Amino acid sequence: MTKLKELEVVSEKRVQFVDITSRIREQVAGSGVGEGVAYIFVPHTTAAVTVNEGADPTVARDIMAALERLVPRDGDYRHGEGNSDAHIKASLMGSSLAVPVSGGNLVLGTWQGIFFCEFDGPRRRKVWVSIQASG
Amino acid sequence: MTKLKELEVVSEKRVQFVDITSRIREQVAGSGVGEGVAYIFVPHTTAAVTVNEGADPTVARDIMAALERLVPRDGDYRHGEGNSDAHIKASLMGSSLAVPVSGGNLVLGTWQGIFFCEFDGPRRRKVWVSIQASG
Amino acid sequence: MTKLKELEVVSEKRVQFVDITSRIREQVAGSGVGEGVAYIFVPHTTAAVTVNEGADPTVARDIMAALERLVPRDGDYRHGEGNSDAHIKASLMGSSLAVPVSGGNLVLGTWQGIFFCEFDGPRRRKVWVSIQASG
Repeated sequence: MTKLKELEVVSEKRVQFVDITSRIREQVAGSGVGEGVAYIFVPHTTAAVTVNEGADPTVARDIMAALERLVPRDGDYRHGEGNSDAHIKASLMGSSLAVPVSGGNLVLGTWQGIFFCEFDGPRRRKVWVSIQASG
Repeated sequence: MTKLKELEVVSEKRVQFVDITSRIREQVAGSGVGEGVAYIFVPHTTAAVTVNEGADPTVARDIMAALERLVPRDGDYRHGEGNSDAHIKASLMGSSLAVPVSGGNLVLGTWQGIFFCEFDGPRRRKVWVSIQASG
Repeated sequence: MTKLKELEVVSEKRVQFVDITSRIREQVAGSGVGEGVAYIFVPHTTAAVTVNEGADPTVARDIMAALERLVPRDGDYRHGEGNSDAHIKASLMGSSLAVPVSGGNLVLGTWQGIFFCEFDGPRRRKVWVSIQASG
């Protein structure tokens, strides 16, 4: 029986994609699960998680810039905390994802990395990881 | 062995975010699963599911308004049913998500709620919930 | 114990939604899993997976056109490979999703299909499928 694990992620900017791939890999390797799925869940409403290119950091920058263009920080929002854009971007990227586990390891495509998406930092954040074995 | 559960959600407007958190909590509490993941799936093509702030309803309103601005109801669409925007918004938000289960309860961040996203209501809709125990 | 399965998808255009529903159904039917969840994961950074209407192909076309309008191929991008838009669209649609399995079959809503979303084709691509039984 694997239990829910909690990682801490510290962001240093308002909007920042933090590569957490190696930390998820460690959790999977330490779980003893051979075949299954690693679930990654962000318990915040102004942050998210996505999979995209991990090799070239300009890709993450282009995603952040596109989201800023589509959902500007300053806009005609009702929510009074000045971070409505961060909530909207969080739902566009999504708060959970699943990555396969096989042979005891996290398996990703060649160029893929897992990114914690900060949209209202800098903050101390949490990421939850649940590793499920195939039945 | 847990079976797939079906909830009914009734929307009252064309576009509406319905907070289903307490109903998902009940399903998890009644499932007998201690550690695992709750999968939420929307079996419709003009509705979706997302996690975002549950405390202040202006956040959901800002997300709906941003989606309407990005994907207006009236546009140059090919699909002839007048609800192309609803299909597009559904794919942007996503039709499935996973939320951790721990200690026999659904676990969410402090401010998080689970929202059924109606984009072509009012309608009677379904939400499917599958609760998986960690192996 | 079910193992991770790999499907090949061949895209023929730069941007194309390929309906992979029947292929996922086959994987589920052959897995021996009665109740559970099928996880679909795209191991590429310029492709994604989404669930939307499978009956009328104009819906997929409208989604592709809306994404092209929101994230044009030519823009002020930093990534030097000319496919930044494809990376951004991939994160907007998402690289993984979960579909319920019940009674030994994949279960979807009446109008739903599962689409491999190519954003930088034509290419030979892979889709990974992991089928988890409820505990």
